[in-house]
Order: sequence, then structure tokens, then C-alpha cells
Amino acid sequence: MQTIRYGGDYNPEQWPEEVWHEDVRLMREAGVNLVSLGIFNWGIIEPAPGEYDWTGLDKVIGLLHDGGIGVDLGTPTSAPPSWLRRAHPEIRLVDSEGRAMASGSRHGVCPSHPVYTDACESIVEQLAARYGEHPAVQMWHLHNEYGWANVQCYCDESAAHFRRWLAAKYGDVDTLNEAWGTAFWGLTYREFDQVEAPAIAPPGVNPALQLDWMRFSNDAHLANYRLQRHVIARHSPAPATTNFMVPNCKDMDYFRWAEHVDVVSNNHYLIAEREEHEIELAMSADLTRAVAGGPWMVMEHSTSAVNWQPRNIAKTPGEMRRNSLAHVARGADGLMFFQWRASRAGSEKFHSAMLPHGGTDTQVWRDVVQLGNDLEKLSTVVGSEVHAEVAVLWDWESWWALELEWRPSVELEYRERVEAYYGSLWKQHVTVDFAHPESDLGRYKAVIAPSSYLLTASAAKNLRGYVEDGGHLLVSYFSGVVDEHDTVHPGAHASVLRETLGLWVEEYHPLHEGARLALTSGASGRIWSEHVRLDGAEAVAAFGEGPDAGRPAVTRHRVGSGTAWYAATALDDATGLRELLAQVLDGAGVQRPQGLPDGLEAVRRGPLSFLINHTGQDQHVPDLRGTDALTGADYADGVPVPAGAVVVLAHAGS
Amino acid sequence: MQTIRYGGDYNPEQWPEEVWHEDVRLMREAGVNLVSLGIFNWGIIEPAPGEYDWTGLDKVIGLLHDGGIGVDLGTPTSAPPSWLRRAHPEIRLVDSEGRAMASGSRHGVCPSHPVYTDACESIVEQLAARYGEHPAVQMWHLHNEYGWANVQCYCDESAAHFRRWLAAKYGDVDTLNEAWGTAFWGLTYREFDQVEAPAIAPPGVNPALQLDWMRFSNDAHLANYRLQRHVIARHSPAPATTNFMVPNCKDMDYFRWAEHVDVVSNNHYLIAEREEHEIELAMSADLTRAVAGGPWMVMEHSTSAVNWQPRNIAKTPGEMRRNSLAHVARGADGLMFFQWRASRAGSEKFHSAMLPHGGTDTQVWRDVVQLGNDLEKLSTVVGSEVHAEVAVLWDWESWWALELEWRPSVELEYRERVEAYYGSLWKQHVTVDFAHPESDLGRYKAVIAPSSYLLTASAAKNLRGYVEDGGHLLVSYFSGVVDEHDTVHPGAHASVLRETLGLWVEEYHPLHEGARLALTSGASGRIWSEHVRLDGAEAVAAFGEGPDAGRPAVTRHRVGSGTAWYAATALDDATGLRELLAQVLDGAGVQRPQGLPDGLEAVRRGPLSFLINHTGQDQHVPDLRGTDALTGADYADGVPVPAGAVVVLAHAGS
Amino acid sequence: MQTIRYGGDYNPEQWPEEVWHEDVRLMREAGVNLVSLGIFNWGIIEPAPGEYDWTGLDKVIGLLHDGGIGVDLGTPTSAPPSWLRRAHPEIRLVDSEGRAMASGSRHGVCPSHPVYTDACESIVEQLAARYGEHPAVQMWHLHNEYGWANVQCYCDESAAHFRRWLAAKYGDVDTLNEAWGTAFWGLTYREFDQVEAPAIAPPGVNPALQLDWMRFSNDAHLANYRLQRHVIARHSPAPATTNFMVPNCKDMDYFRWAEHVDVVSNNHYLIAEREEHEIELAMSADLTRAVAGGPWMVMEHSTSAVNWQPRNIAKTPGEMRRNSLAHVARGADGLMFFQWRASRAGSEKFHSAMLPHGGTDTQVWRDVVQLGNDLEKLSTVVGSEVHAEVAVLWDWESWWALELEWRPSVELEYRERVEAYYGSLWKQHVTVDFAHPESDLGRYKAVIAPSSYLLTASAAKNLRGYVEDGGHLLVSYFSGVVDEHDTVHPGAHASVLRETLGLWVEEYHPLHEGARLALTSGASGRIWSEHVRLDGAEAVAAFGEGPDAGRPAVTRHRVGSGTAWYAATALDDATGLRELLAQVLDGAGVQRPQGLPDGLEAVRRGPLSFLINHTGQDQHVPDLRGTDALTGADYADGVPVPAGAVVVLAHAGS
Repeated sequence: MQTIRYGGDYNPEQWPEEVWHEDVRLMREAGVNLVSLGIFNWGIIEPAPGEYDWTGLDKVIGLLHDGGIGVDLGTPTSAPPSWLRRAHPEIRLVDSEGRAMASGSRHGVCPSHPVYTDACESIVEQLAARYGEHPAVQMWHLHNEYGWANVQCYCDESAAHFRRWLAAKYGDVDTLNEAWGTAFWGLTYREFDQVEAPAIAPPGVNPALQLDWMRFSNDAHLANYRLQRHVIARHSPAPATTNFMVPNCKDMDYFRWAEHVDVVSNNHYLIAEREEHEIELAMSADLTRAVAGGPWMVMEHSTSAVNWQPRNIAKTPGEMRRNSLAHVARGADGLMFFQWRASRAGSEKFHSAMLPHGGTDTQVWRDVVQLGNDLEKLSTVVGSEVHAEVAVLWDWESWWALELEWRPSVELEYRERVEAYYGSLWKQHVTVDFAHPESDLGRYKAVIAPSSYLLTASAAKNLRGYVEDGGHLLVSYFSGVVDEHDTVHPGAHASVLRETLGLWVEEYHPLHEGARLALTSGASGRIWSEHVRLDGAEAVAAFGEGPDAGRPAVTRHRVGSGTAWYAATALDDATGLRELLAQVLDGAGVQRPQGLPDGLEAVRRGPLSFLINHTGQDQHVPDLRGTDALTGADYADGVPVPAGAVVVLAHAGS
Repeated sequence: MQTIRYGGDYNPEQWPEEVWHEDVRLMREAGVNLVSLGIFNWGIIEPAPGEYDWTGLDKVIGLLHDGGIGVDLGTPTSAPPSWLRRAHPEIRLVDSEGRAMASGSRHGVCPSHPVYTDACESIVEQLAARYGEHPAVQMWHLHNEYGWANVQCYCDESAAHFRRWLAAKYGDVDTLNEAWGTAFWGLTYREFDQVEAPAIAPPGVNPALQLDWMRFSNDAHLANYRLQRHVIARHSPAPATTNFMVPNCKDMDYFRWAEHVDVVSNNHYLIAEREEHEIELAMSADLTRAVAGGPWMVMEHSTSAVNWQPRNIAKTPGEMRRNSLAHVARGADGLMFFQWRASRAGSEKFHSAMLPHGGTDTQVWRDVVQLGNDLEKLSTVVGSEVHAEVAVLWDWESWWALELEWRPSVELEYRERVEAYYGSLWKQHVTVDFAHPESDLGRYKAVIAPSSYLLTASAAKNLRGYVEDGGHLLVSYFSGVVDEHDTVHPGAHASVLRETLGLWVEEYHPLHEGARLALTSGASGRIWSEHVRLDGAEAVAAFGEGPDAGRPAVTRHRVGSGTAWYAATALDDATGLRELLAQVLDGAGVQRPQGLPDGLEAVRRGPLSFLINHTGQDQHVPDLRGTDALTGADYADGVPVPAGAVVVLAHAGS
Repeated sequence: MQTIRYGGDYNPEQWPEEVWHEDVRLMREAGVNLVSLGIFNWGIIEPAPGEYDWTGLDKVIGLLHDGGIGVDLGTPTSAPPSWLRRAHPEIRLVDSEGRAMASGSRHGVCPSHPVYTDACESIVEQLAARYGEHPAVQMWHLHNEYGWANVQCYCDESAAHFRRWLAAKYGDVDTLNEAWGTAFWGLTYREFDQVEAPAIAPPGVNPALQLDWMRFSNDAHLANYRLQRHVIARHSPAPATTNFMVPNCKDMDYFRWAEHVDVVSNNHYLIAEREEHEIELAMSADLTRAVAGGPWMVMEHSTSAVNWQPRNIAKTPGEMRRNSLAHVARGADGLMFFQWRASRAGSEKFHSAMLPHGGTDTQVWRDVVQLGNDLEKLSTVVGSEVHAEVAVLWDWESWWALELEWRPSVELEYRERVEAYYGSLWKQHVTVDFAHPESDLGRYKAVIAPSSYLLTASAAKNLRGYVEDGGHLLVSYFSGVVDEHDTVHPGAHASVLRETLGLWVEEYHPLHEGARLALTSGASGRIWSEHVRLDGAEAVAAFGEGPDAGRPAVTRHRVGSGTAWYAATALDDATGLRELLAQVLDGAGVQRPQGLPDGLEAVRRGPLSFLINHTGQDQHVPDLRGTDALTGADYADGVPVPAGAVVVLAHAGS
């Protein structure tokens, strides 16, 4: 039986060799079974072009292997060595303002430049040949954080790649002209060669160009990954991953990446200035699970504070434990930290670690050891699935398109609506999956479409089929607006969903900043109002004021054996969304747990139930019984969950 | 007799040919009699260098002509074709930070670069030769929005043009040194060739250099216009225009442009986040009339929302109609929209149009048809004048100079004071003209100088003559400070107006943010206080507190047969400006309409009186009678103006 | 006996020759005895390369000398002539984003470029040879405001200098790698040639690189100064200065500069939007005195408003006098203004001057004359010292390091804590010295270390020795964190001070924005909390709430014959700092004046006591007697100080 992977990034090159022995000893004490090694050591293993020095790496891998600790071996390509940067300034990433990135940090190179990609291929070949069959190497960790900072490169080389990418996509330039609507503002191209990267320009750059540029830039990084993966496959049977950053990286379409990795792994850090961290974390985990199509692993999170936020708030007592077990509850089969031992130098010396500056006489270390012990007791969960009856739609392309220049309102933000709907469901203790709009939705009792601005005709057809076949669909405003080229679907707004929703939209009425409109239902909306014209749907609630006073604000339409709902304004959990979702879920027959206190997260995964108390009060969950997977205690009449604690139940039943 | 021009931008290239026929049919239904054509079609009519394709344009012009719809034929030079940009990267506009503009939007090229201007000349020559005598072509629309985004180009070519422009202006470099005060900070030039464009530099760039750079940049665009106009004149008898953006374009000195256009046309869009849209619109219209020296036309406004603001608020019911007729009331002989049919693709697909995405079963379309019908009934107004007894001074150069770096206070904004005075007059139902400070002011009973920071000696003399000859002048603080080179007039502050105002200023006392000072008169001032030293004037009110407590805040000086007033702080309508203006206007014998309710705009133009109700209440205007020009109703005892409505009276009398 | 230097920048080149005669006459009227001449006249004295014109300068120096006015002769190198900039664009300063500075302002050139430094050397040689022994030349004023705007140049030439600077500092590249911790993020260098200037890059540029870059940039300007000084020394016996900008220039380490100037001079301007100007000014003066190691002079301040702030607030009545005499009280032997006569043109025409635009019939002029008269009566103070028993630590390198990217909280600002402690001491009428952490502290009864983030091991040892020998030390949080390479000292946080403070820090707990935590003592803290682990110290107060509730917030540790205090949160004067300082000072036996009203600044310097009333009320200082140095009045029973006034006592006693 597999165990939950446990460990972190390990950077022994920052420490003298005597420390390595201590590290292995302490890793064993903490139950560490996997470390990510060599993420940033290119300059050390290849100190000059074609000159290799494996001394340190050989020793460390040997020490780890002797200690029974597996290696997730990194390719160091996210930190090209100083000699490569200095000898080849042409590989520097150029940002949208034409500024070439200097060295001194990491990343900052053009993902498409052949000098760089050749050097990547070469160092990966060396690594894979040397360690590909080493028994310690359990996994490959390609690059680090593709998509971190300055994702789009606007150098001439990238622009040339972009043109080839377009030629491959469109075949002939007239097809591109048609797709991009270049007749607008006289942008017609005669040859692919006339297309430029959308660097700094006066406002109003063709949105279709921008959208394809984002797709190309995603693919440029993915191509680098695929090149490395290809090299490794020739030498090593171990699976490969690269650490995603779901959902805080907007620029990578991880649905596309997931097809190419063997293990989906994710980095997740709390954002101190956000509220409701537990909901944001749950959403990250659920979306990573959707990307993975099953179990996945946390590649990086933190034991306490990070260092790159304005105010790096440390985790509160028990918070690291709650975070960790919530990830496991939502599908993680591994829990890794950045990083094993806190650095003394460089940019991240104030980032927490498994082993803090203060050493082992610290709360953080004690918590790390405790967590390692507990994870060993939860091995039965490895590989198991999370069950959900409700899906929330997610599409990186819709995110990209929705937030291009010149939308009806700057408050049309992709995550705003997704988080509003997801958060309201979380508070109602509903476990959800995320799903792509074109995926098979038949297994869900209800589907929520919060920000489906870009919705292809085939996705619209998919939704229509889902409803006709008995599904319950809830669509938020400003959905179904454009196709894959950011071109408005023909006819009136929302017409691509007209038959499904039973309505069309005559005019958008974005609201003034801070405005709030009362609905006839007692609910109230922000951000948006619009002139809905019914064509089959019935109004469930109307606007009580504002530009659309008296017109429909929430509608319902029975189609086939299903029902399609529509919300024409921004409802929030406390201002009507909770009630609307309850109506939709009741209609769909979605069962929700009863009697759970607010702030008590309850998730069932495979053989275990996780009860996470995010409140400062001791809670008692009635109608639940089972055995405590960590303590062995038996709960016959409900389960007590102390303030801030986590209880994991085996064989739990309601 | 002429009719009011009615129509909009027409971009048939975005639609298949079958739509063109529908367009013409619907235009006729709406009473459209003019469309602007070909604004952005360069890449279509000249798909490759020297290769022309007139097929589409021939057909469209033919269809329009057959439909009785006139053509305002655009030159497409604001959107250079992709082949030109790609083959000649040297024509890219370079901004003040040295960044060359990429393609993908419009504009973004150097107005002075010979490769670009040669290409402009060539395509205009082709167009003019082909359509110059076509009977459908009633007007030429040169370029689009000269002065939109990145107006100043800092490329080497522009800098070289700037040096030649300076040499032509100053003759020898010592004259330039003297004019620019280059002895300050050691900027003395030995040759014109040593002058550089004022691109990014440490703070404190010589303001005289900056001011001439703005003049040069204005002239660089004007030179492009004049080149095109010259070409067209060889082929076509039709008048030419280019669409101004008064007053929201700061960079173009439209007084100078007006000398070179046959028809002044203007673009005006409401700014959602401003208050009192009706006043801002009225000011735009009045200032456009001043620029035109008589009637003019609206080249672009919108039927409802635009797409480029943070929150694109749609127009409320009746607002488009009120906007449109207010323009006509203040001198517009044409009302054109951007655009005829809403685009499906590109950057402005969420911009409203005459024909919305939703088609003809929409309120916008019904309003468009209604407006077209009404305009036909108002033809008698064409060519007639607006009568005003009060002038407000306006000078783009003063705007430029006042807002350069390092003024006494960042709250010294040109439009702030102009709008304060203009708005207070609007609310008192006073129709005003705008006038340049050096123009003949003799026909006005009162003249207001709100932001005359830059005031040449000859303008100061003009004002003095105006007052001596019986005029009533009201000057706001921080006026008469510098000459045309941003050099302080010799001696104490305001000394160039000392004899006129009867005072000088010992020291400026800009106020802290948010500070407000009570005056002895009960008024209160913001932004500014100063140490006024009387020299002939009398104090009408004094500062009651602050750094100048007890010193004059408002003064009056009798000179010759006139009177000069001065306000040494920022009064607003509700805090003393209304009363001050009333005093000045009473003294000047300016009659104001009595009994008009607040928010009821009343403007007389030629044979018609326009009554526009900007309030949500029905209003009744007493002491007015006449015939309703739209309905034919006779009003014998005052005129009812329903909430939000417009009444146009023929032969109205008070 | 020497007199206090009195005068200002004099720029006769901006005026016709007849004005020069008036200037000298008025200077004499005002008691001016020194003017700074020729700061910006390079383009005039060398109008073309190698062509010199001394006519004007000869005349002006002659006129001044005849008038008995000394000359502080400037080298004009901060404003390179237009011919040099235009002929050599390669000397333009390049900022961190790669933008080369255009001309039109001052500065904006690379301090290291040989074309520029050669030109500097040449013009200084000419000046020094011509005027080096002129009897009017009493002082040399090299350059102007080294360190003003765009201090770091990132051009290729600068980068090459940086590499040589590094090679000289570190000897071999492995030493650099070790010092900089380049193993982090794979930044290891093989050759010095691989190091780049830290221009724009993704976030997280190696902080040690950034720190050395700031040191190098400081040295690059200092090298220019030293080059000029060397030239002048060959020709002239007069002492040399350059105007510092303490403490508002962060980029120059003036402790290092002071070693190379003969006279420390400083520019100080009030910042309108700050509060408590008198404290900020006092701190500037005290820190300048620390830099100078004794008396110094004000090279620039203003008679009233400046022109480069958002709102340039004029000085209130008496404020210029209070400012001026406070400088003298705290060590200034000279009081100079920018500038003598207000400019009519250029960027600073709205900057106040000794002679305003309004001429001599102005309050500013009368105040200038009065101040000149008074200064003559205070000559006895020249050369005398200020006595202080308390030192506050100051170190530019700690400032630099503390404010690099990615610290635990953005509210960790260097000056925030220094000003909090300094301000609280000022309000308690305690005169302090500033001192470098590695300097001899033995003469102080108490030492305050507010922001000693970067603290070398030897500085830590210095502090330990100070305490052991009986000193009283108060250290604020986040001190002793890193060494000179921004590397965390080995072990737990604060371990470098562990023996001195008797504690270590387990974890940092930066607070949320706006948060405030109550302490058990009644005090309250902002910004910071942390987990203090006692190791010998005793807790004087504990946190009453927050992440460290119940843990020590203020501690005391007896070491040797001294005491070390520690404050683990941000206390302010009104929220506990006043009481804490009182405890520390009482323990240290520091006497404070009794009975002084709030806002009455009392400073003893040599034979004089300065009493400055910053309040709007008349004050009476009891227990003080002496003779008024300005009026000759005798005070037998306390001293009256009218509202806003300054009294200077000779032979004062308490």
C-alpha cells in the first residue's frame, strides 16, 4: 500500500556537507519520505558550458537513499546559470514594454529561444542519463513554476514562433483575418509575417490577437516541458510532474498541461490579505483535482509565513495542520513544503520552512513531526476519490477573455463570480467538482456556470444537452457572450444560450461603483443589471429598482427534463445567493449534510471523513459515528471536534 | 434649405454584402442622410503596397447613393495597414519613455515620419482621384481623431523635425536661449542641433522647452492634416473636416486647427464617473462653437454606453435625445454617432450603436428612428447663431503651461476653475461663448477669466482695453502669471494685470489638501489663498482665516468705464461663486431668464428655443409662449416640459 | 573670530549685468557674507568644447569681492552642457528599466562614464587654475546634490565599473559567491564578468547583489567628488564641500562622504505634508552633526515655499527664523538659502528666495534682513559643540538592507522607528547625538538602536562591550537580523544579540494593516509582534493579546555593569514609548530639563542656549536666567518666550 508523500524542497547546496547528515536524521524524525532536489542547481552541476560536477549531488542522493528518503529530482531550468545568461543576452525575456530582464533572480528568459531550449535539453539529458535509473529517484520535477512572473515573452524570437504557431493553427491568413475580425480598425493581414506580438501599443489591441497570444504563450512553456519530458522518458521509468499554481496562476491553462504530466502537483500559499482562507484553499484543492482528474499532490505549501507578500502573516496555532489535512481531504496524496530548512541568504530567508532558523526547539518543528506521524495513519486514503454531485464550470480561456481591455465594467472579474458561488456552496457544506464547459456533465445533479463569458457554440450545445437530459443548470450574467475568438455570438446578447435559458438580453447596465439594487425577492445585487427579455423562461425575481426596475433578475426555464436558471446580477451568499442555490439544489435533489455548524468543514474522501473545525469554539457533529483514524477513539453518538482541530473518521456513517 | 445631418460611422467591411442592403433600408427608416465611410479601411483598399481594390467601396458608395444617403468619405490614415507597419518599423511612434508602439490597435505611428506621410499622401491621392467628384461624397473626413493617445512622438525623426521647427520659429539660437531662459540650470544651447525632445529625464525639464514641444506636436499632426487637405483640394469640391475632441483632448490647440478645416466637427462622449453630464456636454458644445466661430456638427457621440471606461454606464431613458438636442441648441447642424451597426469583433463590440446587437426590437433603435424624424422638423435652425452676452476665456496654451511640472499646487488644474465658473453660469441659465484671450471681446457685457495662468502681454493689454472701454471682467487667482514662454512676468506676481485689477500679489499660499477657508462675506474658498496687495482696487470680501486672514479675497477695481473683479481663492457655485457672478453680471447689465426651474436648460438658437428638462419632475416654464416645433402644439401661457423631455419652440418669446 | 556664514545660491547669469550691482548692494543690506556661485554655469563658461568665456564670472567675483562678500565657488558638473550631452549620448544615465535620460533638466548622466568624468576633470582644472587663489574664494562647492534623482546608473559602463569594484572588494569570485549566498536560486558565478547590474528583473533579485550595488553606486558618485577634490587641491588652499541631503537622501552613505569633505554642508527643506516639522528639522540637524563630527553648515534651505512638492505650503510668520536658529542651535555655523533672487524662468520660478519676485517691499525680505542682523550677534557660537548624553544609532547600510524586496512586512521602514524614538526624545527635551553602530559609544549614558536590522558581528560586539562597561542600551524589534551581506546571522533570530539582550526570537508575527495590540503595561503596539524566548532577560511587559499573548513584549537584561532593554513591538510616544524611554533614561541617570512646556525646544550649544517656541502661546521658562544675546535683556527669574519666537541666552544657567 502506498503512503502519503511527505517532505519538501531540499537545497543542500546552501549548506556545508556536515549539515546534510543532520538533515537526513531530522527528516527521518519527521517522517519525511520524499524531497525535491536540485530545483536551482544548474550553475553548480554545470559550472561552465559542458563541464559537469556531480560530486555534491551524488553524495546527497546517496545519503537520502541510505536514509530511506525518496528523491523528486528537479531539472534546474528555471534558473539558468550565470554563464549562459551572460554569454547569450539574446535569451533574456523581453516584457510587453520592451524591457529585457536582467539576471539576479530566477526565470527571466525566453521560453522559446533555441539557445535556451538547447541548453535545457542538454542539461536534462545529462541529469536523466546519470540518475534516470537510480533507485532513489521516485519522481521527476521538471523546471519550477512554469508561468511564474513575466510569462509572456515579446522578443523577436517569440514573435517569430508566434507567427509559426498561427500559421499552423489557421492554415491561411484569410482564415485568421476572419477569426480575428481584423476588418475592425483596419488590421487585415496579407501574410502571417505581418502579425506582431501584442506588446505595448495604444489601447484597444485586437482582443482575438491577445487571446491567441495567451494561448501561444501557454504553449511556449508547455513545449519546453514536453521537450524535457521527452528526454527523460528515454532514460527513466519514473513519473514526471511540474508544479502547477492553481488557481493563482492565470496564464497557464492547466487543463491542457494535465494531459502531459504523469502526476499533477500544485503549489498553494495563503494570501494574508484575503479573508476566508479555508474557502480559498478548498477551491484550490478542488480545482487541482479537476485538472488532475483524480488524486494529486501538494508540491509546495508553507509551514507558516511566506516572505513575498506585503505583510507575511504567520499561520496561527493548528492552521498548518488544518490546511494540510484539508488538502488530503480534497484529493491530495502528497504534502510537500517549500522548503526543508530555512535559508540564511537570498530572497526567501524570511520564508518559513519545516526546520526554522530557530531549529528543533520550536513549535513549527513540533507540528511538522506531528503531521508526519499522523499522515502515516491515513495511508488508506491514497488513490481514493472525492464524490461530488455538483459541478462548477471553470475555463482558463474564459478567464483570459473576460479580463482583456474594454469590457462593459472593470468589475467583471472572472474569479469574483466563481468565488462567490463556490464560497456560498462551501458554506452550505456542499462538496463540488470543477469541470470544463465542454466536458461530460451527465454525472452531476447540478451545474453552476458563474463566469462563462467565453462559451463556444459546442459548449453551449453541451449545456443544452445537459439540461435537456434532466440536468439543473444555473448561469450567471455576462455568460455566453463570445466565442473562442472573443467575437460576440450572432444576434442579441446571450443568444447562444437563448433556447436553454429561455431569454435574451437587450442591453447591459453595469452599475456605478458601490451601487446595490434591491430585488423583489428581498435579495440585492451588485455590479450588474441588464435588460432581460423573456422567451420561454419565467421570472423568479425582478429588479426592484435601477435601470431595469420591474424586469426579470432571476429566471427559470424548464427544458426537456431539466431546468435552466439565470441570475442577472451579482448576488452574494448573504444577499440572496444562498437562497437561490438552495432552490436550485433542492430542485436538483442534491442532498446537503444537516446540522453542521458554520465553519466546520466536512469532506468525505474514500474510506475517510475529514472534519475540520475552522472556528474558535469546540464543535459537536451530531448524527455521525465511527472510529478516529488518528487516535483510535470510537464515536458512537456524534463526533466532538475541538476548536481549531481536525478529526478524521474511518468508516464514518451519518 | 439644408437639413440637419444625421447618421454615423459606417463600417460595411465588417459585414457580408447581404447586410449592406439591409443597412441602407434601415438607414432610410431612421432618416439617416449621411454616413462616415472608410475610416479604417486602408488595409482593404490597398491590401499590398500600390495594389488597390475598390470593389467593396464602389459598391457601398453606389448603394448609399442609390438610397439617397450622402457620404462623408474618410481617409484611412489613422489605421495604417499591417504591411506598412511591418515593412517599416521605423515609423512606429516612440513614447516619452522610449517605447515604440506595436501594432494591433490604431494610431501608434509617428506623424512626422516621411515614410508614413508619403504613404498617407499616396492613399489620399488615390481616394480623392477616384471619388473626388462622386455625387454621393458630400464631405471628406480626414484621418480620425488626430490627437488620440500617444500624441507626442519622441523618435529621432520627430526630434529632428522639432529642431527645424525651432529654427524656423526663433531664427537664431540666442533668441531661443533668451525665450526659454536656458541660463537656469545651465541649459544654454550653442546650436539648434543641441536641442533634444523632452523625453524621460530627471524632474524639472525646462518648461519652455516642454511648452514648445507641445506646440510642435500639435503642428506635426496639423501638418499631416494639411498635406491631406491639399491633395483632396486638387480633386474634389467637397468640404473637409476632421473630428475634434473638444474639450477632452488637451493636446490639440483647436483654435489653430479650425483655421484649416471647412467644417468643424466634434466627438463627444459622456464620462460615466463625472457628475452633471448635461453641464459638461453644454460646455463641450459651447467651446466647439467658439472654435468653429459658428455652427458645427457632432461627428461622434453614442446612442447609449461606450466600452472604454471603467464602468460603461448606459444612457437612461430619454438621455440620448436630451444630449442630441442640447448639441443642436448650442450650434450643431449635424448629429452623427459612432457607429451605425454594433460590431461583433474587435475592441469596441460593447460600444452602443444606432443598430444594436439586439436589432430593431430594441429601445435604442426606436429612439434612433424617433430622433431622425424629429430632426427633419428642426431644419430651420441650420446655419443660425447662438446669442451670448458673456464670454469665458479659454486658451489651450494656458492649459498646457498650467499643468506642467512643479506648480505651486497640484490642485491648480486648468479645467477645474473653468468648469467651476462655467457650471455656475449654466445653473443660472446664462448662455455663454468661449473666447480666446487675444480675441475681440467688445461684444460681451462680461468676460470671465478663470485659468488665465499663461497670459501674454498683448492679451493682458487686450483685457485692459476691454475694461477701459466699459467691459466687466472677472479674473480668478493664479492668472497673468507667465508669458508665452512660461516666464514669470517681470516684477511681483500678477503685475501684468496690476493696472487692470488694481492690485499685486506678494506671496502665494496654496492650501493643504481638503482645507477650506471662510471669507468675511460668508463665502468659503478651497485650494488657494494669497497675499493680495491693493493698488487701487477695493476689497469686496476678505479672508476670515488662514494665512491671509484679514487680507482681500475678492476685489473690485473701476478702470475707465468698466470694472475689473478678482477672486483670490476657489469659490464654488454653492460657496460664494453664484453670488459673486450675480454681482458681476448685475453690474454688467446681463439679463438672465427669470423663473426657470433648476435643471431646466433653456437655450435660444436662431428661430428656435430649446427647453431641456434634466430633472425627474415635470416642469412648467412660465412667461413663455410659441408653437411646438415638433408637435405643432401652441403654448399660450407658459410651456410644460415633462420630466426628462425636450420641447422645441418656434417663434418663442418671453 | 569667525562669523556665521550667511547667504545663498547666486545665479547672476539669469539676469542682466545691471542687476548684479543691485544684488551686491542688497546683499550687504541683508548682512550676506557668502554666496554660492556658478553651480550651473558650465554651458556659459565653456560654451563649446575647450572654448572658455570668463567674462561674466570674472566680473561677478570682482563685484562680490569689492562688496566684501565671499564666494563659495561651485563646479558646474551637475549640469553638463548641451554640447556634451548631444555629442556623447553614451554618457546618458540609464535607469533600472533601461531608459536613457534625456536632457532638459539637470543631472541625468552616468557618474562613471570616462567621457563625462574627463570633461568634469577638465572644467574643474580650468576653474581651479583661474580662481584657486582668488581672495574672494573662501570655499569650493563641488558639484550639486550628488545623489539627487536617478542615483544608480545601469548602463554598460557602470556595469563594467561595478564588476571591477567587486573584483577589488572580493578578490576572487568564490569569496563573492560565499558572501552573496549565490547557491540560493542557482546564481553562482564562475567569473566576475558574469555579474550584471540589478536592473529590471523578475522579483527576488539577490539582496546581497542589491546591497553591493547600492554601495558601488555611492562610491561611483564619491569617486567623481574625489577626482574633483584632487584637482582643486593642486590649485587652491580653500576648503571644499558638497551639499549633502541629510536625511532625505537614502542613497548616499554620508558617513563615508564625510571623510572626504573639509566642511560638511547640508540641504534641508520642510516637507509640507509631514507633521511636526520642527522635529524632522532637528533630526536632520543632529544627524548632519553626527556625520560632520562637529559643526557644519546649512547650504540650502528656503525662506518660504518650495516648488517641487504637491502643495508648496509657504512658511508661516516666524517659521523661517525658528528653522534657521534651530539649525544654529544644533551645530550649524552657516545658513545659506536656495536662492538669492527668485528666478523668472525655468523649473524653480515658484521657489521662494531671499529676494522674492515682489522685491524688497515684502515680509520675506524684511525677515531676511532681520536674520542677517541677528546672526552677527551670535558669532560666539561658531565652532562650539553640542552636548548630548544619549545616542541614537544610524547606519545607511541598515536602511538600504531593511527596505529591499521581500521583508516580513512592508511596514518595516527604517525611518519609521528612528523617527518614533527620536521624536519621543525630542518631546521630552532630550538632546541626542546620532552615532554609527560601530563607533565608540562609551561617552553616552544611553544608546537607542531603533532599526538595526543590518548589524555586523563587530557592531554587535561593540554594543555588548558598551553594555558590559555600564551602558544602557535599548534595542527595537527586527534588529541584529542580518550581517553586512544581508545574510541571516547563524541560528535563531536575534542570536547575534542573544548574550546582550538575554533572549532569542522563535518566530516573527507581523501584524495586519492597522492592527494594534494591548500590552499588559497599558501600552500598545503596532506593526509587529514576535515570539520572544527569554534566556536571561526578564519580561518588563507582555503582550496582552494577539499571536504572542502572554509572551514578553518589553524585556530588560543586566549584563556586566550595564543594562540592555528590548522592545518587541512598535510603541509610539503616546502609547508607551515615552514611559519606556523614561525608564531607560532614569536607569541610565540621564538628566532631562524640568518644567519646559510642550513644543518649547531648548538646546544648549557652547556659550548659548536656544529657546524656540513652536507653539501659538507665549511661554515662560522657569528656573533659567541669563542675558538675551540678541536684545541684551537680562532675565533674572525665568525667560519669557513669546508665541512663535526664539530667545537666545548667553551664559544661561538652570
